[in-house]
Amino acid sequence: MQSTASKRILTVAALGLVVLARAPFADEHGPGAAPNGISLPEGYKDWRVVAASHRDDNNTLRVILGNDMAIEAARAGNTNPWPDGVILGKLVWKDARHEAWEKAVVPGEFVHAEFMIKDTGKWPATGGWGYARWKGMDQKPYGKDASFVDECHGCHTPVKDNDYVFTRPAAIP
Amino acid sequence: MQSTASKRILTVAALGLVVLARAPFADEHGPGAAPNGISLPEGYKDWRVVAASHRDDNNTLRVILGNDMAIEAARAGNTNPWPDGVILGKLVWKDARHEAWEKAVVPGEFVHAEFMIKDTGKWPATGGWGYARWKGMDQKPYGKDASFVDECHGCHTPVKDNDYVFTRPAAIP
Repeated sequence: MQSTASKRILTVAALGLVVLARAPFADEHGPGAAPNGISLPEGYKDWRVVAASHRDDNNTLRVILGNDMAIEAARAGNTNPWPDGVILGKLVWKDARHEAWEKAVVPGEFVHAEFMIKDTGKWPATGGWGYARWKGMDQKPYGKDASFVDECHGCHTPVKDNDYVFTRPAAIP
Repeated sequence: MQSTASKRILTVAALGLVVLARAPFADEHGPGAAPNGISLPEGYKDWRVVAASHRDDNNTLRVILGNDMAIEAARAGNTNPWPDGVILGKLVWKDARHEAWEKAVVPGEFVHAEFMIKDTGKWPATGGWGYARWKGMDQKPYGKDASFVDECHGCHTPVKDNDYVFTRPAAIP
C-alpha cells in the first residue's frame, strides 16, 4: 500500500506527462499547434517530392512533399483515395525573378508550410483530411480558432473527385 | 603455384569485373552513361528539395534536388563554392494548367533529369562541375559526344560568380 506522499508524487508526475503529451511543440521546442490541435509534422523538410506548382493568381511558387506513406502511395498510383496515414506538405514562397535569368521564376520570401493529414476516423467532416498551416519562417499557426478548416476544405471542394487533393504526383523516372 | 587453367579463370573473372565496373548502367539495369562517362546518379528521386523554378522562356516547371552533401551544404550556407561530392539534380516538366484551378501551373509531360556533379579534380575545365542529362521517361543520355558539356557550361557561365549554379537554396523553416 502506497503512502499519501508517494501518491502525491505519482499524481504530480502523471500530470506533468499529460502536459508534455498535450503540448509537445508549445514552447522552445518549436511552433505551437494549429487551432484544431494538429502539431507541425516532424521532419517535413526532409520529405520527398510529389510535385510542384506556380500560381498566377497569388504569385506563389510551391513544392509539394509527402511523408513515406504518401510517396509510397503516389508511386503505386494509390491516390484516390489516399490511404490513412498519408501526410502531404506544401512549401509556399512568393515568386521572384532570377537576377541572372529574367525568364526564370524562383522562390522568394517564404510564405507558409501547409499540410493535409489523412485520418478518416479523426476528420470525417472534412473528407478524412485534417488541415493545418504555419505562416512564415517563425511558423505562426494559422487560424483564430478551429473553424479555419472551413476555409481550407471549402477551397478543396472543387477537387472532391480527386479525394479533395489538387496535387497529382508528377511523373519522375 | 597456380595452374594455367585457374589463371585463365581468374583472368576471365577479372575482365568481367572490369566490364561491370565500367558500364554499371549500360544494360537492363538502367539507362546508359552520358557521353562524358557520367552515370545516372543512383536514388536521385529520393533526394531532398533545394528549390524550384518555372521558366517562361521554354515553359517548364522544375524542382531542384540535392544529394545528402548538397542538402548539408545548402543548409549550412556553404554554397559558394559548393564542396566536392555535391550533386545537384534538376527534374524538368513541360508546364500545364490545373484542370480545376486554371491559375495554377503544374507539372505536365516529363522532359528530362539533369545533374551537376562537383569534383574539382575531375572537371577542372568546367569550373569543377561534371554535367549530364537524361531525356524523357526512358532516360536517353543527352549529347552526341562529350562536347555536349560546352552547351551546359556556356549556359551556366553568366552565374560564374555563384559557382556556376543558378539555383539558390530556397528558405525552408
